[in-house]
Amino acid sequence: MSVVVVGSVAYDGVETPHGKVERMLGGACTYISLAASYFTHVKIVAVVGDDFAQEDYGLLAGRGIDLEGLERIPGGKTFFWQGVYSQDMNDRTTLRTDLNVFADFAPKLPEHYKSQPYLLLGNIQPTLQGDVRRQMPGTRLAGGDTMNLWIEHTREELLKTIRDWDFLLINDGEARMLSGESNLKFAARKIMDMGPSTVVIKRGEYGALLFRHDQHFAVPGYLLERVFDPTGAGDCFAGGFVGYLAERGFDLNGAVDRKELHRAVIYGSVMGSFCCERFGVERFRTLTRQDIDARFEEFRSFTEF
Amino acid sequence: MSVVVVGSVAYDGVETPHGKVERMLGGACTYISLAASYFTHVKIVAVVGDDFAQEDYGLLAGRGIDLEGLERIPGGKTFFWQGVYSQDMNDRTTLRTDLNVFADFAPKLPEHYKSQPYLLLGNIQPTLQGDVRRQMPGTRLAGGDTMNLWIEHTREELLKTIRDWDFLLINDGEARMLSGESNLKFAARKIMDMGPSTVVIKRGEYGALLFRHDQHFAVPGYLLERVFDPTGAGDCFAGGFVGYLAERGFDLNGAVDRKELHRAVIYGSVMGSFCCERFGVERFRTLTRQDIDARFEEFRSFTEF
Repeated sequence: MSVVVVGSVAYDGVETPHGKVERMLGGACTYISLAASYFTHVKIVAVVGDDFAQEDYGLLAGRGIDLEGLERIPGGKTFFWQGVYSQDMNDRTTLRTDLNVFADFAPKLPEHYKSQPYLLLGNIQPTLQGDVRRQMPGTRLAGGDTMNLWIEHTREELLKTIRDWDFLLINDGEARMLSGESNLKFAARKIMDMGPSTVVIKRGEYGALLFRHDQHFAVPGYLLERVFDPTGAGDCFAGGFVGYLAERGFDLNGAVDRKELHRAVIYGSVMGSFCCERFGVERFRTLTRQDIDARFEEFRSFTEF
Repeated sequence: MSVVVVGSVAYDGVETPHGKVERMLGGACTYISLAASYFTHVKIVAVVGDDFAQEDYGLLAGRGIDLEGLERIPGGKTFFWQGVYSQDMNDRTTLRTDLNVFADFAPKLPEHYKSQPYLLLGNIQPTLQGDVRRQMPGTRLAGGDTMNLWIEHTREELLKTIRDWDFLLINDGEARMLSGESNLKFAARKIMDMGPSTVVIKRGEYGALLFRHDQHFAVPGYLLERVFDPTGAGDCFAGGFVGYLAERGFDLNGAVDRKELHRAVIYGSVMGSFCCERFGVERFRTLTRQDIDARFEEFRSFTEF
């Protein structure tokens, strides 16, 4: 049950109130695939330059991630992003974005990727997301993420793209922007009318909401004692969400077990919370499936009544 | 199993994006007691002027609320507050505060109030809350609410007062202000060290958290389609919380059933959500216990996984 993950593999420079790292492995595809790899087999589609370190290949390969779709451009440089977080870490300012090889990214799917049942489209240009989606018409479950940039500047392409998605993962501000509705219930309804039958709205420290037809599920955020670095938390949420559904063989075309979707939101929340505990992808160097399942049970105990 | 409720009975002028009411029944004691009255018998301690309308006595008495402790000052005028809410209703600006008879409020407890098992101290000056608390030393459960004004200007009195409380209800901003901790887990711990063994942090539309010893409970907010008027929602939360515990005969001195505390937070959330559906206390003119229990079950269904 493989998940194909498309998105950026990058180097990030990050400063938070807890410290500063000049250059470390990052990118949506990286975070999504690391998180999903605890649940299922992952195949990635991304691009890097020849500055991409052997050690970073090693981290991904060590988690069993299929790197055949990770294109390496000779003489190219890997996407670099640099940002700084506010004191409360609810805002961040981008200091530098060097697209480098990512500027010409045209996702190429190895033949054996195309028949995989699950597809997670990380946050890249909607037309590229659409290209990949069309190469995998037989999925059981396909969806992805987007951001304010595409909602504002390539709205038509985005709408055309998400029409064919089963689910959309989006944060609360972007859900309001995309739908034009400030009330999240109305916002979700409008987005479901755009195509995806399932909409997951991420609310940062306040948790997440899942909408499907006329019902919804809500979970509060995990109370971390220290948020070291929120970079990648939303992507880890996506990885945990789709990873769990793939592990369970979830099939939207069959009878949908709604509780499975709820549990996928919990696993998404669990993975997002672990991500924040260390800088960058550090937490994934030691994290075990046992840790993950223990935190899942913690969610049960602090939400049960 | 009566609850004694102390606080303001007032007239409010409120403007929200959905409308404007020049003068209507309000005040913390009013909201708390109306909400609690669906669960248990309520006895109030408050003060009004002789402008207090017969119809408003009627609403409270009609819910079975004991008004013997509602002092009426001949020639006095009832506390009046006027405010306007921001477009998203997360902020409000006070336009006018006429304390009137409330300026000299010295809570007088009728003799038969003093032996009641439950006490809810609405948001009034901490020394007054302390006076009342001392008149009811034998409660099973006593606690209350406070606000930024007292945290800033009468901090010492407030600390002395809450030392004798079993629980404190407080919103997230005030919890941070009182504790000096931005992380809510640390904030709750510091507040528990100040006296209350149970701390409930209200997060508005994001729900609520309950802390007790080293454990906590979290519930997301109810997704309302339209928030007409958030005035009194926090007080209705308090009323539902303490009302349910009184109904269940909850005794902090016995073996504590933590799930009962969790369910009390849910009933608090239920009552807060109903409050927002109409202006002022309007919703309580038609609300039934059946509606309340149905919404409690809704909470179960949208949080279960």
